[in-house]
Amino acid sequence: MGISIIVPLIAIAALCVAAGLSSWISKVDEGTDTMKEIAGHIRDGAMAFLRREYITMVIVVAVVFVIIGFALGNWITAVLYLVGAAFSVLAGFLGMRVATKGNVRTANAARESGMGKALNVAFRSGAVMGICVSGLGMLGLGAAFCILDIATITETVTGFGMGASTMALFGRVGGGIYTKAADVGADLVGKVEAGIPEDDPRNPAVIADNVGDNVGDVTGMGSDLFESYCGANISALSLAAVVAVNTNGAVSQYTAALFPLLLSACGLAASVLGILTVNGSGKNVNPSASLNRGTYIACGIEIIVAIVLSKVMLQSFTFAGAIICGLIIGLVIGKVTEIFTSSDYGQVKKIAKESQTGAGTGLIAGLGVGMMSTVVPIICIAAGIILAYHFAGTYGIALAAVGMLSTVGITVAVVAYGPIADNAGGIAEMSELPEEVRDITDQLDAVGNTTAAIGKGFAIGSAALSALGLFITYAHVSKLEMVSLLDPVVIAGLFVGAMVPFLFAALTMNSVGKAANEMIEEVRRQFRADPGILAGTSKPDYEKCVDISTKAALREMIIPALLAIFVPLIIGICFGPEALGGTLAGSLSAGVLMAIMMANAGGAWDNAKKYVEEGNYGGKGSETHKATVVGDTVGDPFKDTSGPSMNILINLMTITAVVFAPLFARIGGLFF
Amino acid sequence: MGISIIVPLIAIAALCVAAGLSSWISKVDEGTDTMKEIAGHIRDGAMAFLRREYITMVIVVAVVFVIIGFALGNWITAVLYLVGAAFSVLAGFLGMRVATKGNVRTANAARESGMGKALNVAFRSGAVMGICVSGLGMLGLGAAFCILDIATITETVTGFGMGASTMALFGRVGGGIYTKAADVGADLVGKVEAGIPEDDPRNPAVIADNVGDNVGDVTGMGSDLFESYCGANISALSLAAVVAVNTNGAVSQYTAALFPLLLSACGLAASVLGILTVNGSGKNVNPSASLNRGTYIACGIEIIVAIVLSKVMLQSFTFAGAIICGLIIGLVIGKVTEIFTSSDYGQVKKIAKESQTGAGTGLIAGLGVGMMSTVVPIICIAAGIILAYHFAGTYGIALAAVGMLSTVGITVAVVAYGPIADNAGGIAEMSELPEEVRDITDQLDAVGNTTAAIGKGFAIGSAALSALGLFITYAHVSKLEMVSLLDPVVIAGLFVGAMVPFLFAALTMNSVGKAANEMIEEVRRQFRADPGILAGTSKPDYEKCVDISTKAALREMIIPALLAIFVPLIIGICFGPEALGGTLAGSLSAGVLMAIMMANAGGAWDNAKKYVEEGNYGGKGSETHKATVVGDTVGDPFKDTSGPSMNILINLMTITAVVFAPLFARIGGLFF
Repeated sequence: MGISIIVPLIAIAALCVAAGLSSWISKVDEGTDTMKEIAGHIRDGAMAFLRREYITMVIVVAVVFVIIGFALGNWITAVLYLVGAAFSVLAGFLGMRVATKGNVRTANAARESGMGKALNVAFRSGAVMGICVSGLGMLGLGAAFCILDIATITETVTGFGMGASTMALFGRVGGGIYTKAADVGADLVGKVEAGIPEDDPRNPAVIADNVGDNVGDVTGMGSDLFESYCGANISALSLAAVVAVNTNGAVSQYTAALFPLLLSACGLAASVLGILTVNGSGKNVNPSASLNRGTYIACGIEIIVAIVLSKVMLQSFTFAGAIICGLIIGLVIGKVTEIFTSSDYGQVKKIAKESQTGAGTGLIAGLGVGMMSTVVPIICIAAGIILAYHFAGTYGIALAAVGMLSTVGITVAVVAYGPIADNAGGIAEMSELPEEVRDITDQLDAVGNTTAAIGKGFAIGSAALSALGLFITYAHVSKLEMVSLLDPVVIAGLFVGAMVPFLFAALTMNSVGKAANEMIEEVRRQFRADPGILAGTSKPDYEKCVDISTKAALREMIIPALLAIFVPLIIGICFGPEALGGTLAGSLSAGVLMAIMMANAGGAWDNAKKYVEEGNYGGKGSETHKATVVGDTVGDPFKDTSGPSMNILINLMTITAVVFAPLFARIGGLFF
Repeated sequence: MGISIIVPLIAIAALCVAAGLSSWISKVDEGTDTMKEIAGHIRDGAMAFLRREYITMVIVVAVVFVIIGFALGNWITAVLYLVGAAFSVLAGFLGMRVATKGNVRTANAARESGMGKALNVAFRSGAVMGICVSGLGMLGLGAAFCILDIATITETVTGFGMGASTMALFGRVGGGIYTKAADVGADLVGKVEAGIPEDDPRNPAVIADNVGDNVGDVTGMGSDLFESYCGANISALSLAAVVAVNTNGAVSQYTAALFPLLLSACGLAASVLGILTVNGSGKNVNPSASLNRGTYIACGIEIIVAIVLSKVMLQSFTFAGAIICGLIIGLVIGKVTEIFTSSDYGQVKKIAKESQTGAGTGLIAGLGVGMMSTVVPIICIAAGIILAYHFAGTYGIALAAVGMLSTVGITVAVVAYGPIADNAGGIAEMSELPEEVRDITDQLDAVGNTTAAIGKGFAIGSAALSALGLFITYAHVSKLEMVSLLDPVVIAGLFVGAMVPFLFAALTMNSVGKAANEMIEEVRRQFRADPGILAGTSKPDYEKCVDISTKAALREMIIPALLAIFVPLIIGICFGPEALGGTLAGSLSAGVLMAIMMANAGGAWDNAKKYVEEGNYGGKGSETHKATVVGDTVGDPFKDTSGPSMNILINLMTITAVVFAPLFARIGGLFF
């Protein structure tokens, strides 16, 4: 066991810090009775959704557990699959609990103490989620590494990753459908038809909308990064044998397998340090600078750790090169995302300008921006692959992913902070708190919008690298010498694989459309049935809207999520490992492009709308504004449902292939 | 020389039939003086655009000619490049001439003789284009095959294909920008702002709009299929050596190289027969049935020819299997395109239904339809690859493309007929001919809309197969044993390659946006400057609008088109042949998907708008109608600029790689 025990110990220590932060948050006052009541509605709605979602998923997980066990005859893999799924649930559940505690307390801190305290409450709530994601990942993987011998862990740990990815895909798709159905329904009927403002308590869908922010942006994002994080570590661990061969045994497989885990554990510790430096107390708080400082501190520590560990454990500095490649790719993709989606830069302004001639030209401009935004990230990823390989072979590509994700603790903290601040604003509005309170939460929320966009870019980049690492692991496990594009089944597989993200996007967008329509009908029905609602004399039926979103999300998430598991299974069984290699490469390349395009186009449309609302090109209510609202409606499922789920799709497809690789190798393709 | 002389002889005979049809069309009366005048404007505008476009392209072609000559030291390839470019120009020019003669005569035939004669004039005008495309292709390739020995032709004929593809990409992008700038400008200001009907002579952009139909849909489509046609034949010809090896010399390389050409020449003859059976004279003409009959006759003859030739020349029926695969893929893709883009089926109706809740939901539905429509075509292509390979190895994949394109003569005839009928309707409207005339042209046009959508699907499918054949040719010429996705430069290349279609789509959509804005400003300016235009008392300045479209198209087509030539050159020179293999596979897969998605989403939006205009969901002028107009505006560049150019992009990239393969092999990658 020896030194490897450090990994779960660091994880447990970090989780203790999270528990401390969580109890600090609990001690903050919840505010007025109205605030408590509204926060209670949101919390109950979110918890009810999670509970029902998890119950649905238990069935899927049980079926896959049995399939893994019997098809592979390896029950350790199957058990690790359960553990991975359970840890993903736990991370999502804990993050959600503290987020729904933090939102109302943020609002109250803004009311009682001002910006500094509000920032602290919101950020620390997000930090609990961040530490849980990273800490539970390291606890699970680290404990498994300590318990099992190196041969067994290498063979079975992929089960853990597949469990995490399964839950993540369901969570992202379900949460994404939930949040957008509620959002579109609340906006189109409430804001556009009835003319009441955002987050108005008279809107029957307003609670569902706020619940959606939590289940979509908090739990969804958390489980997304949890699965990339585990995937990256698992692929590096699995490729450790290659290092042993390449160094003629000077570095043992055990050491090379422990290296990514230890690196990630140190990254977790660095993230905790970074998190603790973020403090809004004091005068002239700049939320954005404060958050950035924390991130830079964590990254700086991690780079030093990487250099030292690389030399000490693997006897060469070159491995640190691969890790730093990953960190740099993450930063560049984040910056590009900001340039393409923030109204401080030209692209968003261009969309607003083009919207003057109507929604059509605004949409063309937005799609153009989304497509154009793929260029630099893809060139970065391509360069990163070549450089990381140059530094440390195929293991290096996996290490780049580990490096990029090693400080995921603080990344998630920064990203999860956004929706918490957003929720706080909603609660302030619904509780009719004074204007100043809303001003503070708006400022926090504005920073959160940028961090959310950057977080999405980061999630895509890290998922791409992690899936790439798993793709190489797949070839390694399948003992494929090559996957040649000149082999007709590979090129046929490539086409089919590239089609999967298009099919997946179509399914999820249609689901959002369907669910949103149900919500629209319900909100209209309530306004018609009881005119007292709009007059403010009677309360709308929030529960009914929460229920519609919940049911629609649970119903619609099944088929897209199963696609990711069954496409690789069917191709692998029917056409063999090489064809599946082509399929995975096709999905990976097309999926990353679609994810970047959709996330950035959606973010840009959203901010173009906000830019017009600030008074540009006619401001709120003008024809240009209406045109940008259309763009935002299209952008909603792009950026919050289809786009971000794409990351997980490619990871889940790849890790399913890795887990079942022994089966495919045994069958060798039914049709060939 | 021997038997190969048959190929150019059949081509010359077919071209004589085209000349006969052309002179028959010339004898039809042009109608009233107004009709003559308007037709003259359209003809002059189209010819002026083509002239200026070709002058711009002469520079590019000259530069590439010199690069090929010096970089490869092979001036025969360079000369064939010029010949290929010249033949493409000739096909486009001849087709355009007869189309701009046929449009006014179709209108007049409808006026004087009714449906039957009008159908004959419109279809025969399209047929001249179809025969020119196929005939000039066979004349050029056949003559080169007769003159050069087998070793030389195999090495140099790719130059011919690259010339054809270069011209096609410029033509498609330039024509696409031209037609959409004029269309969007005419619609947004004329129809929406000023409230005048389509094709109203008071609209200053109306002539430019009609010119656009010709340069975009007639010349663009013609040069598109010309390059796929040549590409397919060239790849089969280049892979003939493989057949000689596989059959241990029982089939000579010469015979296997001649086979695709002879097959295509017979397909040309079959197309001419099919064309001659289409006759609208007689009672109860059903244009759709008449066109379909011609196509089925041509395909039926071709299947018999394929079986006989396969057995006689290649001593086995299996080769015919590959050819029939190609024909079937073409039919299936055509049918799927129809299902997803025709208002007779559910998908278009769904878009119209979703548009009731606004443009946003209508757009989401349309994008979903476009993405969903990729599934069956991609599975067909993948299955086709595997089956064709099963029947006849890598040569079989090229043969599938040849088979699909062998009856391109009648395919182009059917597709080109649509815009001619559309133009005839425009002329009837502008000349204020009686309502019955417009009714006839509308009926012809409605059939044309379906055939145009099917034609686009066919063009994409054939381009995909032809590019795939060329991709295999590239590997063969580069003597690559494998292009393994486990090689980091290949997977990096795959990412970059998959990004190119996104970048290309962004560039072309932005270009349409920019050009359309210039047109919008000009039309508004004319209406403001002279109120007599809208009153009908003074004539608008048509020339100015034609000039804006022309200049914008010429300016904006350069960068996207150069991308297709320089990306493979740069990757090949800097990173070597394997990396380029990955890049080509990435572009090919992502490009085909984007092409199908964009073409079908665009077609579906267009027909959803028409479906609402027919009186569904509130009909013309309703909010639902306005929402579908937004969809149509987004769909315009999708289906007429970016989508269809994508086919040529992937072909031009691949054939550039084939032509320069010896250079890349010599350098072996500057950075590796």
